[in-house]
Amino acid sequence: MYSPPTLDDIRRAAERIRPYAHRTPVLTCASLDRETGARVFLKCENLQKVGAFKFRGAANAVFSLSEADTTRGVATHSSGNHAQALALAARLRGMSATIVMPRTAPAVKKAAVAGYGARIVFCEPTLAAREAALAEVVAATGAHVVHPYDDDRVIAGQGTAALELLEDVPDLDVVMTPVGGGGLLSGTSIAVAALAPRVRTIGAEPEMADDAWRSLQAGRIIPSVNPKTIADGLLTSLSPRTFGIIRRNVDRIVTVGETAIAAAMRFVWERAKIIIEPSAAVPIGALWERKFDGTGLRVGVILSGGNVDLEKLPWLA
Amino acid sequence: MYSPPTLDDIRRAAERIRPYAHRTPVLTCASLDRETGARVFLKCENLQKVGAFKFRGAANAVFSLSEADTTRGVATHSSGNHAQALALAARLRGMSATIVMPRTAPAVKKAAVAGYGARIVFCEPTLAAREAALAEVVAATGAHVVHPYDDDRVIAGQGTAALELLEDVPDLDVVMTPVGGGGLLSGTSIAVAALAPRVRTIGAEPEMADDAWRSLQAGRIIPSVNPKTIADGLLTSLSPRTFGIIRRNVDRIVTVGETAIAAAMRFVWERAKIIIEPSAAVPIGALWERKFDGTGLRVGVILSGGNVDLEKLPWLA
Repeated sequence: MYSPPTLDDIRRAAERIRPYAHRTPVLTCASLDRETGARVFLKCENLQKVGAFKFRGAANAVFSLSEADTTRGVATHSSGNHAQALALAARLRGMSATIVMPRTAPAVKKAAVAGYGARIVFCEPTLAAREAALAEVVAATGAHVVHPYDDDRVIAGQGTAALELLEDVPDLDVVMTPVGGGGLLSGTSIAVAALAPRVRTIGAEPEMADDAWRSLQAGRIIPSVNPKTIADGLLTSLSPRTFGIIRRNVDRIVTVGETAIAAAMRFVWERAKIIIEPSAAVPIGALWERKFDGTGLRVGVILSGGNVDLEKLPWLA
Repeated sequence: MYSPPTLDDIRRAAERIRPYAHRTPVLTCASLDRETGARVFLKCENLQKVGAFKFRGAANAVFSLSEADTTRGVATHSSGNHAQALALAARLRGMSATIVMPRTAPAVKKAAVAGYGARIVFCEPTLAAREAALAEVVAATGAHVVHPYDDDRVIAGQGTAALELLEDVPDLDVVMTPVGGGGLLSGTSIAVAALAPRVRTIGAEPEMADDAWRSLQAGRIIPSVNPKTIADGLLTSLSPRTFGIIRRNVDRIVTVGETAIAAAMRFVWERAKIIIEPSAAVPIGALWERKFDGTGLRVGVILSGGNVDLEKLPWLA
């Protein structure tokens, strides 16, 4: 039977990635507290290497490989933050990385991945084409696949952000993260449940990509079909692995509308002076709109990332 | 004879403002290091209360006042970060603040000052009109004037950022700040000269507002006349007080062109994921263009602020 990562796995991940990852700061913002009624602690994974928490999981996976495994490289399909994260982690370990990306990915993302020295294999923009292209890469190179979230080493790595947050802010009532494929929420919920069982873990997702909410309601995985949301890091759906962990550990999933996500993002830029991507703004939007009412509570929010095209800001559309 | 603030004054300021100011984080950014050749440590005063280091000086001045002095309030003329800083510091002490602002100040700045509960007195946009309006306020209310930089309590307060930076990063070779009126550079240079005499303090200013550079060359104050620069926090000129301190303590002043300032600002947004205003980007631009060659050195940069109109970004003009 499958047994998910434990607190010990997360602690080992923290040791493993420590030389490479930033220990990101926890910021507070009086005006955000005023707007939400909560005392909010922002765990700034937007300030992490490659601008996203994804580096934690990718680095843990890459540095978990045996020396022998490093010769064949790693591979994944992703056009998002995981692609950059895996590319950088592989470079730091001195091994090759191959990233399967859709031809249609934004030029800035292709450039970022190439900038970290990874080989890019382009494919048609469908899941089937991505998986076929990745299978070809694996067949040709023997590369080790690192999935963006359906991987225990990745989940343990993502849990290290919560470990630091709980160390830095001991008296939290709630920890919130966005949820897409569920890697961050899974790792976070394992750390929180083990270290601070009194603290609730809550996931926040876009109304327009609410598969986690619907899956938890239904008690089985209901994937999102072609979701459209400004929170483009949260388009993926839970896997059996993350669904199981989240069902066990997470207090609830709340959903947030597009307008609130964009407004929360802008508010954080203006008042907290940090750049967050729309996905990272989803828990803030949830607090703001009282989708989860944090009034009077100490709420840790893991800001998932800060990768935004500065030429295309939602309020300048 | 005038005797400038000392390290002890800065230490007392740090104690005084500790309950109110953020201890701002120090961030590093591998791509910034690559571009500059230096190891750069970003002291993030853009993440300070009101989004600027100015809160340190204003808070030190306000909390230095005797209980009796608080009844008459504080006043200043400023349309920039000092206005917001003084307004918030006064509110925290439970006293009134009057800010003289030019009628032409951007609506967003007027709203910010009003939002901190200060009274605003509008005047024509000339220095003479500002000073006349401020004199009227003082005559009518007996308010205590807190100058944005020509004030020892303000200079000591601004020096507290360097105190924290030197504590967090012990082995610096250089500390850089932008220079406008010289309050931040003065306070920084006093802290650095006393605590780490081996460390050089360097000021960076826009080529288009290079009064500090020219003044140090000439050995006397040469004010900027109607300077125009994107770094709108650096339009002011040194005062006799800051000129004297800077001449004694500062290794050199370097100047930076407008294009480099804007490019450095964008680079920090994109790669460090924090919002800085153009003025804060000036030392980064100086490192980038080797106006000061930091190659191989450990360089602390005090990022002065992050107050930017998100509707008007230089790269979207």
